[in-house]
Amino acid sequence: MNPYEVLYRVRAQKPLVHHLTNWVTIYDCANITKAFGASPVMAHAEEEVEEMATIASSLVLNIGTLTTKFVESMKLAAKSANRKKIPVILDVCGAGATIYRDNKCFELLDQTKIDVIKGNSSEIARISGENVFTKGVDALAIEKDLIKIARDLASLRKATVVITGAEDIVTDGNIVYLIKNGHEMMEKIVGTGCMVASVIGAFCAVEKNLPLASAAALSVYGITGELAAKDSLLPGTFKEKFFNHAYSINEPTIKRMQKIETR
Amino acid sequence: MNPYEVLYRVRAQKPLVHHLTNWVTIYDCANITKAFGASPVMAHAEEEVEEMATIASSLVLNIGTLTTKFVESMKLAAKSANRKKIPVILDVCGAGATIYRDNKCFELLDQTKIDVIKGNSSEIARISGENVFTKGVDALAIEKDLIKIARDLASLRKATVVITGAEDIVTDGNIVYLIKNGHEMMEKIVGTGCMVASVIGAFCAVEKNLPLASAAALSVYGITGELAAKDSLLPGTFKEKFFNHAYSINEPTIKRMQKIETR
Amino acid sequence: MNPYEVLYRVRAQKPLVHHLTNWVTIYDCANITKAFGASPVMAHAEEEVEEMATIASSLVLNIGTLTTKFVESMKLAAKSANRKKIPVILDVCGAGATIYRDNKCFELLDQTKIDVIKGNSSEIARISGENVFTKGVDALAIEKDLIKIARDLASLRKATVVITGAEDIVTDGNIVYLIKNGHEMMEKIVGTGCMVASVIGAFCAVEKNLPLASAAALSVYGITGELAAKDSLLPGTFKEKFFNHAYSINEPTIKRMQKIETR
Repeated sequence: MNPYEVLYRVRAQKPLVHHLTNWVTIYDCANITKAFGASPVMAHAEEEVEEMATIASSLVLNIGTLTTKFVESMKLAAKSANRKKIPVILDVCGAGATIYRDNKCFELLDQTKIDVIKGNSSEIARISGENVFTKGVDALAIEKDLIKIARDLASLRKATVVITGAEDIVTDGNIVYLIKNGHEMMEKIVGTGCMVASVIGAFCAVEKNLPLASAAALSVYGITGELAAKDSLLPGTFKEKFFNHAYSINEPTIKRMQKIETR
Repeated sequence: MNPYEVLYRVRAQKPLVHHLTNWVTIYDCANITKAFGASPVMAHAEEEVEEMATIASSLVLNIGTLTTKFVESMKLAAKSANRKKIPVILDVCGAGATIYRDNKCFELLDQTKIDVIKGNSSEIARISGENVFTKGVDALAIEKDLIKIARDLASLRKATVVITGAEDIVTDGNIVYLIKNGHEMMEKIVGTGCMVASVIGAFCAVEKNLPLASAAALSVYGITGELAAKDSLLPGTFKEKFFNHAYSINEPTIKRMQKIETR
Repeated sequence: MNPYEVLYRVRAQKPLVHHLTNWVTIYDCANITKAFGASPVMAHAEEEVEEMATIASSLVLNIGTLTTKFVESMKLAAKSANRKKIPVILDVCGAGATIYRDNKCFELLDQTKIDVIKGNSSEIARISGENVFTKGVDALAIEKDLIKIARDLASLRKATVVITGAEDIVTDGNIVYLIKNGHEMMEKIVGTGCMVASVIGAFCAVEKNLPLASAAALSVYGITGELAAKDSLLPGTFKEKFFNHAYSINEPTIKRMQKIETR
């Protein structure tokens, strides 16, 4: 796989990525979408989300600062995206932290078609029905075999499942990609988890093979982090450099640094 | 015109600029207002917006992540600002993307007095009744004569109209300013469109001639972008430098670099 | 006092700090919490705030962009935190700007137990019943003896009171700490006032002596600003460096630079 090939299309096509995301990292999500060459739009009014989704090329949902009203808008947007057959990415941000949050995730999964379910290990485990506990938005170690959890959830929900972590997992229930790019500095700043959902959204907007698009996105994103970490191991400067590299990363670098394995 | 003369008053008077803006760039809007020397306040509760507007020196409205309730608060704030005779700036962010968004702009324009209407070419064209389409928040090329569109809208709405772009247009229906400052890097980052409305708000807070104040704001803002682009053509670093220059820009630089033409 | 000793525990224990804060600086608040080694979570839905507070180690409330519904969620979260006996920090951001804002502060103070009341001089004076006026979110000079105002409010509300300024004041009505760390560049950027409440929240999460924890937080935070100002006196770069130093600040630096006096 050449992840750059997908990035190239993002930059060329500048797909519109419609977000209903959280109020903490909405700024980061818009910035990273733009830095990689796509076009972000954030809109959540129930009166306009359906129409906005029809002009977009993908839809990214993130429950980080959810409310009941906001989730209802997500459903309207997702159903509109489903009708238009554009991919819907759901970041189950903070799933496992409260019962309410879990229930809203299940409502979204049950009432709309989610094409890519993305979370860290504890979040995805919880959505899979495992009895784990999420401390806020940070991942806890899960004893169980994460690949099995991801495959089972993908099969159950007929979706691509992405588990982020030191080693990212992407699967549609059949093919499994392991992505070993990334740097621990990415965990030292707020927003890396949310931003990667935007990047997956941008890549899935231009590549119909969603597991491949997601794996490419994770690899390019992880390489961006590795490049930024070479510049600085301090969070303020790291973040600045992260956006620089997202914007300027090129094919030779991606080809040389990509670490995607297929299982 | 000496745009610095208006900036000088912003820095000296530190006017309070009341914002009801969107959740994506609210952070940028507050930061740029402060960087240029004014004082930002963001408040949107229906119970307090009228009172908050009475202690402000200008009011900036931005419909980027509008809801019906939020627009109702905007109307209350605008009517209060109208009574106090402080200038109201409306950024018609994303107009043309959905019917709902257009209608809410028209409601604001019909039910309150908007002193400065600001948007990119496709947004302003749509607000003028032209049959154009906005892809999210990014501008599309408009075939029609933009100066004519701006003048007609200014006359119709008895307002100052600002069209941002490679060449900014400011008009009250009579005088027309063309501002040729700015740099294409400003389109590579999120927030530049929203932030300039805050800067116009700060400048209009201290200068009653609103077309002149708006043109001065656009020129100073564009020069800030040119200076930042000299430092870096990468978006993370560009943005950092942009805020540095907004804070430190001085009279000789502005005098030397300003490109304001009168038509 | 060794402020580092408290920071050390923040970094070791990584306490979860639950925020209900404003939409302008929510991003900054999350980032600074993480930079100092704690774990931020932002959640405000009435259906989940009580449960979220039970898994947190402290709760930070900030009324910067309050609404009535949002304050009701704050009350639910605060009552839950009270039951679990975790400290509740209230940033009375913008108190004095509108009657509504004052009233909501009083509701929170009357209906829940607030452990740390934090504001600038004019905000705290207003909450104390002084007839002062707040211009947006920036402090005005207060004629009256600020230490007396702080002590009286602390005694009245049985809380720790923090007044931020060139010289910070912390008191529980008996002991008084004066913290002379900090740099004027911190007033040149948006977010420093809000972020310090997050840092106080992180420190109070690991140290039961709340005046001591708050004083330690203010000192470490002020030193961070001094270090960043040595790197740059321009706001974009200053902020980047501020996060770098928050992350990397060490014991010898804190011991050498801390300026905490006891009255």
